[in-house]
Amino acid sequence: MKPPHRESVLSRAARILQAFSQDEPALTVSEIARRTGLHVATASRLVGELVGHGFLSRDEDRRVRIGVRLWELVVRASPTLSLRDAAMPFMEGVHDVVGHHVQLAVLDGEEVLFLERLSAPRSVINYTRVAGRLPLHASSSGLVLLAHGPAALKDRVLTGELAAYTDATPATPAVLRAVLAEVRRQGYAYCPGYVHDDALGIAAPVRGADGTVAAALSVIVPNDRSAQAIVPVVRTAARGVSRALGAAAAPGTPSA
Amino acid sequence: MKPPHRESVLSRAARILQAFSQDEPALTVSEIARRTGLHVATASRLVGELVGHGFLSRDEDRRVRIGVRLWELVVRASPTLSLRDAAMPFMEGVHDVVGHHVQLAVLDGEEVLFLERLSAPRSVINYTRVAGRLPLHASSSGLVLLAHGPAALKDRVLTGELAAYTDATPATPAVLRAVLAEVRRQGYAYCPGYVHDDALGIAAPVRGADGTVAAALSVIVPNDRSAQAIVPVVRTAARGVSRALGAAAAPGTPSA
Repeated sequence: MKPPHRESVLSRAARILQAFSQDEPALTVSEIARRTGLHVATASRLVGELVGHGFLSRDEDRRVRIGVRLWELVVRASPTLSLRDAAMPFMEGVHDVVGHHVQLAVLDGEEVLFLERLSAPRSVINYTRVAGRLPLHASSSGLVLLAHGPAALKDRVLTGELAAYTDATPATPAVLRAVLAEVRRQGYAYCPGYVHDDALGIAAPVRGADGTVAAALSVIVPNDRSAQAIVPVVRTAARGVSRALGAAAAPGTPSA
Repeated sequence: MKPPHRESVLSRAARILQAFSQDEPALTVSEIARRTGLHVATASRLVGELVGHGFLSRDEDRRVRIGVRLWELVVRASPTLSLRDAAMPFMEGVHDVVGHHVQLAVLDGEEVLFLERLSAPRSVINYTRVAGRLPLHASSSGLVLLAHGPAALKDRVLTGELAAYTDATPATPAVLRAVLAEVRRQGYAYCPGYVHDDALGIAAPVRGADGTVAAALSVIVPNDRSAQAIVPVVRTAARGVSRALGAAAAPGTPSA
Protein backbone atom coordinates (compact mmCIF):
# COMPACT_ATOMS: atom_id res chain seq x y z
CA MET A 1 0.00 0.00 0.00
CA LYS A 2 3.06 2.25 0.01
CA PRO A 3 2.81 4.93 -2.70
CA PRO A 4 6.32 4.94 -4.22
CA HIS A 5 5.55 7.76 -6.69
CA ARG A 6 4.59 10.14 -3.93
CA GLU A 7 7.57 9.43 -1.74
CA SER A 8 9.94 9.74 -4.58
CA VAL A 9 8.69 13.10 -5.89
CA LEU A 10 9.02 14.82 -2.52
CA SER A 11 12.36 13.18 -1.91
CA ARG A 12 13.63 14.36 -5.28
CA ALA A 13 12.19 17.84 -4.73
CA ALA A 14 14.03 18.00 -1.39
CA ARG A 15 17.27 16.97 -3.13
CA ILE A 16 16.79 19.68 -5.75
CA LEU A 17 16.19 22.40 -3.14
CA GLN A 18 19.32 21.23 -1.30
CA ALA A 19 21.42 21.75 -4.43
CA PHE A 20 21.26 25.53 -3.96
CA SER A 21 23.51 27.41 -1.52
CA GLN A 22 24.64 30.92 -0.66
CA ASP A 23 27.66 30.50 -2.95
CA GLU A 24 25.56 29.00 -5.75
CA PRO A 25 22.06 30.49 -5.54
CA ALA A 26 21.47 30.03 -9.30
CA LEU A 27 22.01 26.76 -11.19
CA THR A 28 21.28 25.42 -14.66
CA VAL A 29 19.18 22.27 -15.01
CA SER A 30 22.26 20.26 -15.94
CA GLU A 31 24.09 21.53 -12.83
CA ILE A 32 21.06 20.50 -10.77
CA ALA A 33 21.08 17.06 -12.40
CA ARG A 34 24.79 16.67 -11.61
CA ARG A 35 24.41 17.75 -7.97
CA THR A 36 21.35 15.60 -7.29
CA GLY A 37 22.31 12.53 -9.31
CA LEU A 38 19.03 12.77 -11.25
CA HIS A 39 18.83 12.21 -15.00
CA VAL A 40 18.73 15.53 -16.88
CA ALA A 41 15.27 14.70 -18.26
CA THR A 42 13.95 13.92 -14.77
CA ALA A 43 15.57 17.02 -13.27
CA SER A 44 14.20 19.12 -16.11
CA ARG A 45 10.64 17.87 -15.62
CA LEU A 46 10.75 18.26 -11.83
CA VAL A 47 12.28 21.74 -12.08
CA GLY A 48 9.45 22.65 -14.43
CA GLU A 49 6.88 21.49 -11.90
CA LEU A 50 8.65 23.24 -9.03
CA VAL A 51 8.74 26.46 -11.08
CA GLY A 52 5.03 26.02 -11.76
CA HIS A 53 4.29 25.89 -8.04
CA GLY A 54 6.57 28.82 -7.16
CA PHE A 55 9.12 26.69 -5.29
CA LEU A 56 11.74 27.66 -7.87
CA SER A 57 11.96 30.45 -10.43
CA ARG A 58 13.77 30.73 -13.75
CA ASP A 59 15.93 33.71 -14.81
CA GLU A 60 15.90 35.15 -18.31
CA ASP A 61 19.18 33.24 -18.87
CA ARG A 62 17.38 29.96 -17.92
CA ARG A 63 19.21 29.61 -14.63
CA VAL A 64 17.06 28.38 -11.76
CA ARG A 65 16.78 29.84 -8.24
CA ILE A 66 14.78 29.36 -5.06
CA GLY A 67 11.42 31.01 -5.80
CA VAL A 68 10.38 34.27 -4.17
CA ARG A 69 6.99 32.63 -3.47
CA LEU A 70 8.65 29.82 -1.50
CA TRP A 71 10.80 32.36 0.37
CA GLU A 72 7.66 34.27 1.28
CA LEU A 73 5.76 31.18 2.50
CA VAL A 74 8.66 29.99 4.59
CA VAL A 75 9.69 33.31 6.08
CA ARG A 76 6.21 34.60 6.91
CA ALA A 77 5.49 31.41 8.91
CA SER A 78 9.11 30.96 9.97
CA PRO A 79 9.58 28.60 12.90
CA THR A 80 11.94 31.18 14.41
CA LEU A 81 10.20 34.46 13.52
CA SER A 82 9.04 35.30 17.06
CA LEU A 83 12.53 34.64 18.44
CA ARG A 84 14.11 36.77 15.74
CA ASP A 85 11.55 39.59 16.22
CA ALA A 86 12.16 39.60 19.97
CA ALA A 87 15.93 39.64 19.53
CA MET A 88 16.39 42.22 16.77
CA PRO A 89 15.95 45.43 18.82
CA PHE A 90 18.49 44.17 21.37
CA MET A 91 20.87 42.99 18.65
CA GLU A 92 20.71 46.41 17.01
CA GLY A 93 21.56 48.03 20.34
CA VAL A 94 24.58 45.78 20.78
CA HIS A 95 25.63 46.41 17.19
CA ASP A 96 25.49 50.20 17.73
CA VAL A 97 27.86 49.91 20.70
CA VAL A 98 30.15 47.03 19.72
CA GLY A 99 30.16 47.10 15.89
CA HIS A 100 31.67 44.07 14.09
CA HIS A 101 29.23 41.11 14.17
CA VAL A 102 26.19 40.43 16.35
CA GLN A 103 24.46 37.08 15.92
CA LEU A 104 21.51 35.00 17.00
CA ALA A 105 21.80 31.20 16.88
CA VAL A 106 19.85 28.09 17.82
CA LEU A 107 20.71 24.45 18.31
CA ASP A 108 19.78 22.23 15.35
CA GLY A 109 20.86 18.62 15.47
CA GLU A 110 24.52 18.63 16.52
CA GLU A 111 25.29 22.05 15.08
CA VAL A 112 24.69 25.76 15.63
CA LEU A 113 22.30 27.29 13.11
CA PHE A 114 22.61 31.07 12.73
CA LEU A 115 19.23 32.80 12.37
CA GLU A 116 20.37 36.38 12.09
CA ARG A 117 23.54 38.41 11.81
CA LEU A 118 24.26 42.13 11.85
CA SER A 119 27.66 43.06 10.44
CA ALA A 120 29.59 46.27 9.85
CA PRO A 121 32.01 46.99 6.99
CA ARG A 122 35.67 46.23 7.82
CA SER A 123 34.71 43.97 10.73
CA VAL A 124 36.96 41.21 12.02
CA ILE A 125 36.85 37.93 10.06
CA ASN A 126 33.77 35.79 10.74
CA TYR A 127 32.76 32.44 9.26
CA THR A 128 29.11 32.60 10.26
CA ARG A 129 26.33 33.38 7.81
CA VAL A 130 22.58 33.76 8.11
CA ALA A 131 21.20 30.21 7.76
CA GLY A 132 24.79 28.94 8.05
CA ARG A 133 26.11 26.38 10.53
CA LEU A 134 29.12 25.80 12.77
CA PRO A 135 30.03 22.85 15.00
CA LEU A 136 29.00 23.17 18.65
CA HIS A 137 32.41 22.80 20.29
CA ALA A 138 34.23 25.59 18.43
CA SER A 139 31.93 28.63 18.41
CA SER A 140 30.88 30.71 21.43
CA SER A 141 27.20 30.28 20.48
CA GLY A 142 27.65 26.53 20.17
CA LEU A 143 29.33 26.26 23.55
CA VAL A 144 26.45 28.12 25.23
CA LEU A 145 23.87 25.91 23.50
CA LEU A 146 25.84 22.74 24.27
CA ALA A 147 26.50 23.71 27.91
CA HIS A 148 22.74 24.08 28.45
CA GLY A 149 21.75 21.26 26.07
CA PRO A 150 20.60 17.68 26.75
CA ALA A 151 23.08 15.32 28.42
CA ALA A 152 22.78 12.87 25.51
CA LEU A 153 23.89 15.60 23.08
CA LYS A 154 26.92 16.41 25.27
CA ASP A 155 27.86 12.72 25.29
CA ARG A 156 27.63 12.49 21.51
CA VAL A 157 29.71 15.63 20.96
CA LEU A 158 32.32 14.65 23.57
CA THR A 159 32.77 11.21 21.98
CA GLY A 160 32.63 12.51 18.39
CA GLU A 161 35.21 14.24 16.24
CA LEU A 162 36.37 17.60 17.66
CA ALA A 163 37.98 19.54 14.80
CA ALA A 164 40.77 21.96 15.82
CA TYR A 165 40.40 25.19 13.83
CA THR A 166 43.24 26.84 15.74
CA ASP A 167 45.54 25.93 18.63
CA ALA A 168 42.93 27.48 20.97
CA THR A 169 39.92 25.38 19.85
CA PRO A 170 38.75 23.10 22.70
CA ALA A 171 39.42 19.98 20.63
CA THR A 172 39.87 17.28 23.28
CA PRO A 173 37.06 15.86 25.47
CA ALA A 174 38.86 16.93 28.68
CA VAL A 175 39.34 20.55 27.57
CA LEU A 176 35.80 20.76 26.13
CA ARG A 177 34.32 19.39 29.37
CA ALA A 178 36.17 22.06 31.37
CA VAL A 179 35.06 24.81 28.96
CA LEU A 180 31.41 23.72 29.20
CA ALA A 181 31.56 23.70 33.01
CA GLU A 182 33.02 27.21 32.93
CA VAL A 183 30.31 28.42 30.53
CA ARG A 184 27.60 27.13 32.87
CA ARG A 185 29.32 28.54 35.96
CA GLN A 186 29.96 32.06 34.63
CA GLY A 187 26.79 32.32 32.50
CA TYR A 188 28.48 33.09 29.17
CA ALA A 189 31.10 31.79 26.72
CA TYR A 190 34.31 33.76 26.10
CA CYS A 191 36.22 32.28 23.18
CA PRO A 192 39.49 33.96 22.11
CA GLY A 193 40.70 32.53 18.79
CA TYR A 194 38.64 29.31 18.91
CA VAL A 195 37.56 29.52 15.24
CA HIS A 196 40.14 31.97 13.83
CA ASP A 197 43.25 33.40 15.52
CA ASP A 198 42.15 36.99 14.90
CA ALA A 199 38.57 36.70 16.16
CA LEU A 200 37.01 36.38 19.61
CA GLY A 201 33.44 35.22 20.27
CA ILE A 202 31.31 36.09 23.30
CA ALA A 203 27.92 34.39 23.68
CA ALA A 204 25.18 34.41 26.33
CA PRO A 205 22.06 32.24 26.69
CA VAL A 206 18.60 33.44 25.64
CA ARG A 207 15.85 31.72 27.66
CA GLY A 208 12.31 31.10 26.43
CA ALA A 209 9.09 31.43 28.43
CA ASP A 210 9.64 27.96 29.94
CA GLY A 211 13.07 28.99 31.29
CA THR A 212 15.08 26.66 29.06
CA VAL A 213 17.83 28.01 26.80
CA ALA A 214 16.23 28.70 23.42
CA ALA A 215 19.06 30.49 21.64
CA ALA A 216 22.45 32.15 21.99
CA LEU A 217 23.15 35.83 21.39
CA SER A 218 26.79 36.46 20.45
CA VAL A 219 29.31 38.98 19.18
CA ILE A 220 32.46 38.38 17.15
CA VAL A 221 35.14 41.02 17.78
CA PRO A 222 38.93 41.34 17.33
CA ASN A 223 40.89 38.94 19.53
CA ASP A 224 42.40 41.28 22.16
CA ARG A 225 41.97 42.01 25.85
CA SER A 226 39.59 44.95 25.30
CA ALA A 227 36.92 42.35 24.44
CA GLN A 228 36.41 41.61 28.16
CA ALA A 229 34.57 44.94 28.51
CA ILE A 230 31.94 43.72 25.99
CA VAL A 231 30.81 40.77 28.14
CA PRO A 232 28.25 42.76 30.19
CA VAL A 233 26.79 44.23 26.98
CA VAL A 234 26.16 40.77 25.53
CA ARG A 235 24.79 39.35 28.79
CA THR A 236 22.44 42.30 29.28
CA ALA A 237 21.10 42.02 25.74
CA ALA A 238 20.58 38.24 26.06
CA ARG A 239 18.61 38.79 29.29
CA GLY A 240 16.57 41.50 27.60
CA VAL A 241 15.63 39.10 24.80
CA SER A 242 14.79 36.42 27.40
CA ARG A 243 12.46 38.83 29.19
CA ALA A 244 10.87 39.83 25.86
CA LEU A 245 10.21 36.12 25.24
CA GLY A 246 8.54 35.84 28.65
CA ALA A 247 11.33 34.17 30.66
CA ALA A 248 10.57 34.89 34.30
CA ALA A 249 13.93 35.39 35.96
CA ALA A 250 16.80 34.80 33.51
CA PRO A 251 19.15 33.52 36.22
CA GLY A 252 22.83 34.41 36.03
CA THR A 253 23.91 30.95 37.13
CA PRO A 254 22.06 27.63 37.16
CA SER A 255 21.92 27.73 40.96
CA ALA A 256 20.46 31.26 41.19
CA MET B 1 2.72 10.38 -20.72
CA LYS B 2 1.81 13.03 -18.15
CA PRO B 3 2.61 11.83 -14.62
CA PRO B 4 -0.50 12.81 -12.67
CA HIS B 5 0.79 11.43 -9.37
CA ARG B 6 3.85 13.65 -9.47
CA GLU B 7 1.98 16.79 -10.33
CA SER B 8 -0.56 16.22 -7.68
CA VAL B 9 1.88 15.56 -4.83
CA LEU B 10 3.79 18.80 -5.42
CA SER B 11 0.58 20.72 -5.89
CA ARG B 12 -0.79 19.36 -2.61
CA ALA B 13 2.53 20.01 -0.85
CA ALA B 14 2.36 23.61 -2.08
CA ARG B 15 -1.18 23.94 -0.74
CA ILE B 16 -0.08 22.59 2.64
CA LEU B 17 2.82 25.03 2.91
CA GLN B 18 0.45 27.88 2.00
CA ALA B 19 -1.82 26.99 4.93
CA PHE B 20 0.70 28.47 7.40
CA SER B 21 0.99 32.19 8.08
CA GLN B 22 2.53 34.62 10.55
CA ASP B 23 -0.70 34.59 12.58
CA GLU B 24 -0.98 30.79 12.43
CA PRO B 25 2.53 29.35 12.23
CA ALA B 26 1.44 26.08 13.91
CA LEU B 27 -1.52 23.95 12.78
CA THR B 28 -2.94 20.53 13.60
CA VAL B 29 -3.38 18.02 10.79
CA SER B 30 -7.15 18.52 10.86
CA GLU B 31 -6.70 22.30 10.59
CA ILE B 32 -4.40 21.70 7.61
CA ALA B 33 -7.00 19.40 6.04
CA ARG B 34 -9.69 22.05 6.51
CA ARG B 35 -7.56 24.86 5.04
CA THR B 36 -6.38 22.85 2.04
CA GLY B 37 -9.57 20.94 1.27
CA LEU B 38 -7.66 17.65 1.49
CA HIS B 39 -9.09 14.58 3.24
CA VAL B 40 -7.68 14.20 6.75
CA ALA B 41 -6.09 10.86 5.81
CA THR B 42 -4.42 12.39 2.75
CA ALA B 43 -3.28 15.45 4.69
CA SER B 44 -1.96 13.24 7.46
CA ARG B 45 0.06 11.07 5.06
CA LEU B 46 1.48 14.06 3.17
CA VAL B 47 2.33 15.90 6.38
CA GLY B 48 4.17 12.76 7.50
CA GLU B 49 6.20 12.73 4.30
CA LEU B 50 6.89 16.47 4.49
CA VAL B 51 8.05 16.06 8.11
CA GLY B 52 10.29 13.21 6.95
CA HIS B 53 11.99 15.48 4.42
CA GLY B 54 12.36 18.42 6.83
CA PHE B 55 9.83 20.61 5.00
CA LEU B 56 7.64 20.58 8.10
CA SER B 57 8.29 19.73 11.73
CA ARG B 58 6.02 18.46 14.49
CA ASP B 59 5.86 19.92 18.02
CA GLU B 60 5.59 17.78 21.15
CA ASP B 61 1.87 18.71 21.16
CA ARG B 62 1.53 17.29 17.59
CA ARG B 63 1.08 20.67 15.98
CA VAL B 64 2.87 21.12 12.68
CA ARG B 65 5.12 24.02 11.61
CA ILE B 66 7.35 25.02 8.71
CA GLY B 67 10.56 23.00 9.23
CA VAL B 68 13.80 24.62 10.32
CA ARG B 69 15.53 22.59 7.61
CA LEU B 70 13.30 24.13 4.90
CA TRP B 71 13.85 27.59 6.40
CA GLU B 72 17.59 27.01 6.22
CA LEU B 73 17.56 25.79 2.60
CA VAL B 74 15.41 28.68 1.45
CA VAL B 75 17.12 31.47 3.38
CA ARG B 76 20.72 30.43 2.68
CA ALA B 77 20.03 30.45 -1.08
CA SER B 78 17.45 33.24 -0.83
CA PRO B 79 16.70 34.95 -4.13
CA THR B 80 17.03 38.28 -2.31
CA LEU B 81 19.95 37.62 0.06
CA SER B 82 22.50 39.79 -1.76
CA LEU B 83 20.03 42.70 -1.90
CA ARG B 84 19.24 42.31 1.79
CA ASP B 85 22.93 42.02 2.74
CA ALA B 86 23.77 45.16 0.77
CA ALA B 87 20.90 47.10 2.30
CA MET B 88 21.14 46.14 5.98
CA PRO B 89 24.07 48.40 7.02
CA PHE B 90 22.33 51.40 5.43
CA MET B 91 18.97 50.45 6.93
CA GLU B 92 20.55 50.20 10.38
CA GLY B 93 22.02 53.68 9.92
CA VAL B 94 18.62 55.12 8.98
CA HIS B 95 17.02 53.29 11.88
CA ASP B 96 19.55 54.79 14.34
CA VAL B 97 18.65 58.30 13.18
CA VAL B 98 14.94 58.04 12.36
CA GLY B 99 13.67 55.24 14.64
CA HIS B 100 10.16 53.89 13.96
CA HIS B 101 10.22 51.54 10.91
CA VAL B 102 12.78 51.13 8.13
CA GLN B 103 11.90 48.71 5.33
CA LEU B 104 13.20 47.10 2.17
CA ALA B 105 10.70 45.99 -0.47
CA VAL B 106 10.61 44.54 -3.98
CA LEU B 107 7.97 44.25 -6.68
CA ASP B 108 6.33 40.82 -6.89
CA GLY B 109 3.46 40.42 -9.28
CA GLU B 110 1.15 43.38 -8.69
CA GLU B 111 2.12 43.86 -5.06
CA VAL B 112 4.93 45.08 -2.82
CA LEU B 113 6.72 42.26 -1.00
CA PHE B 114 8.62 43.37 2.13
CA LEU B 115 11.99 41.63 2.50
CA GLU B 116 13.17 43.23 5.69
CA ARG B 117 11.97 45.57 8.41
CA LEU B 118 13.67 47.18 11.39
CA SER B 119 11.26 48.49 14.02
CA ALA B 120 11.54 50.21 17.37
CA PRO B 121 9.23 49.78 20.37
CA ARG B 122 6.39 52.37 20.55
CA SER B 123 6.73 53.20 16.86
CA VAL B 124 3.90 54.62 14.78
CA ILE B 125 1.37 52.08 13.46
CA ASN B 126 2.58 50.07 10.47
CA TYR B 127 0.84 47.30 8.51
CA THR B 128 3.93 45.90 6.84
CA ARG B 129 5.59 42.67 7.94
CA VAL B 130 8.66 40.79 6.80
CA ALA B 131 7.45 38.58 3.92
CA GLY B 132 4.18 40.54 3.99
CA ARG B 133 2.54 42.35 1.09
CA LEU B 134 0.75 45.63 0.32
CA PRO B 135 -0.89 46.89 -2.88
CA LEU B 136 1.28 49.06 -5.11
CA HIS B 137 -0.86 52.21 -5.22
CA ALA B 138 -1.18 52.80 -1.46
CA SER B 139 2.29 52.36 0.04
CA SER B 140 5.32 54.61 -0.51
CA SER B 141 7.43 51.57 -1.48
CA GLY B 142 4.77 50.43 -3.94
CA LEU B 143 4.53 53.86 -5.56
CA VAL B 144 8.31 53.95 -6.10
CA LEU B 145 8.30 50.43 -7.59
CA LEU B 146 5.26 51.19 -9.75
CA ALA B 147 6.58 54.56 -10.93
CA HIS B 148 9.73 52.82 -12.21
CA GLY B 149 7.98 49.59 -13.25
CA PRO B 150 6.93 48.28 -16.67
CA ALA B 151 4.29 50.27 -18.57
CA ALA B 152 2.06 47.17 -18.78
CA LEU B 153 2.03 46.90 -15.00
CA LYS B 154 1.06 50.57 -14.66
CA ASP B 155 -1.80 49.99 -17.12
CA ARG B 156 -3.06 47.00 -15.14
CA VAL B 157 -2.90 48.83 -11.81
CA LEU B 158 -4.51 52.01 -13.21
CA THR B 159 -7.41 50.03 -14.68
CA GLY B 160 -7.78 47.71 -11.67
CA GLU B 161 -9.37 48.21 -8.29
CA LEU B 162 -7.74 51.00 -6.23
CA ALA B 163 -8.74 50.48 -2.61
CA ALA B 164 -9.01 53.65 -0.48
CA TYR B 165 -7.49 52.97 2.95
CA THR B 166 -7.94 56.62 4.00
CA ASP B 167 -9.18 59.83 2.38
CA ALA B 168 -5.56 60.47 1.33
CA THR B 169 -4.98 57.18 -0.58
CA PRO B 170 -4.50 57.87 -4.33
CA ALA B 171 -7.55 55.76 -5.20
CA THR B 172 -8.56 57.12 -8.62
CA PRO B 173 -6.62 56.63 -11.87
CA ALA B 174 -6.19 60.39 -12.35
CA VAL B 175 -4.78 61.00 -8.86
CA LEU B 176 -2.56 57.89 -9.03
CA ARG B 177 -1.20 58.97 -12.42
CA ALA B 178 -0.28 62.37 -10.99
CA VAL B 179 1.33 60.82 -7.92
CA LEU B 180 3.43 58.45 -10.07
CA ALA B 181 4.61 61.34 -12.26
CA GLU B 182 5.60 63.25 -9.13
CA VAL B 183 7.49 60.23 -7.71
CA ARG B 184 9.48 59.94 -10.94
CA ARG B 185 10.12 63.71 -11.13
CA GLN B 186 11.28 64.20 -7.53
CA GLY B 187 13.03 60.81 -7.13
CA TYR B 188 11.12 59.65 -4.05
CA ALA B 189 7.60 58.99 -2.74
CA TYR B 190 6.21 61.07 0.15
CA CYS B 191 2.94 59.60 1.39
CA PRO B 192 1.18 61.28 4.33
CA GLY B 193 -1.66 59.11 5.61
CA TYR B 194 -2.03 56.94 2.47
CA VAL B 195 -2.38 53.67 4.41
CA HIS B 196 -3.29 54.94 7.91
CA ASP B 197 -4.15 58.50 9.00
CA ASP B 198 -1.43 58.52 11.67
CA ALA B 199 1.45 57.21 9.54
CA LEU B 200 3.57 58.72 6.78
CA GLY B 201 5.72 56.71 4.36
CA ILE B 202 8.82 57.93 2.53
CA ALA B 203 10.42 55.66 -0.07
CA ALA B 204 13.33 55.98 -2.50
CA PRO B 205 14.46 53.71 -5.33
CA VAL B 206 17.34 51.24 -4.98
CA ARG B 207 19.01 50.53 -8.34
CA GLY B 208 20.82 47.33 -9.25
CA ALA B 209 24.05 46.99 -11.24
CA ASP B 210 22.10 47.34 -14.51
CA GLY B 211 20.66 50.70 -13.40
CA THR B 212 17.05 49.51 -13.17
CA VAL B 213 15.08 49.92 -9.94
CA ALA B 214 15.50 46.68 -7.98
CA ALA B 215 13.89 47.63 -4.67
CA ALA B 216 12.53 50.45 -2.53
CA LEU B 217 13.98 51.58 0.78
CA SER B 218 11.38 53.25 2.98
CA VAL B 219 10.60 54.62 6.42
CA ILE B 220 7.25 54.80 8.21
CA VAL B 221 7.07 57.71 10.68
CA PRO B 222 4.33 59.74 12.42
CA ASN B 223 2.23 61.80 10.01
CA ASP B 224 3.38 65.37 10.71
CA ARG B 225 5.40 68.05 8.95
CA SER B 226 8.69 67.16 10.66
CA ALA B 227 8.81 64.11 8.36
CA GLN B 228 10.02 66.30 5.48
CA ALA B 229 13.45 66.51 7.13
CA ILE B 230 13.80 62.72 6.82
CA VAL B 231 13.60 62.69 3.01
CA PRO B 232 17.35 63.29 2.44
CA VAL B 233 18.20 60.52 4.94
CA VAL B 234 16.11 57.99 3.01
CA ARG B 235 17.38 59.12 -0.41
CA THR B 236 21.03 59.01 0.72
CA ALA B 237 20.63 55.51 2.15
CA ALA B 238 18.89 54.25 -1.02
CA ARG B 239 21.74 55.63 -3.14
CA GLY B 240 24.24 54.01 -0.81
CA VAL B 241 22.58 50.63 -1.26
CA SER B 242 22.49 51.22 -5.04
CA ARG B 243 26.22 51.90 -5.09
CA ALA B 244 26.85 48.81 -2.92
CA LEU B 245 24.92 46.79 -5.54
CA GLY B 246 27.14 48.23 -8.28
CA ALA B 247 24.79 50.84 -9.76
CA ALA B 248 27.01 53.30 -11.61
CA ALA B 249 25.43 56.70 -11.07
CA ALA B 250 22.15 56.43 -9.14
CA PRO B 251 20.58 59.39 -10.94
CA GLY B 252 18.29 61.71 -8.99
CA THR B 253 15.82 61.99 -11.87
CA PRO B 254 15.21 59.79 -14.90
CA SER B 255 16.57 62.50 -17.20
CA ALA B 256 19.84 63.00 -15.28
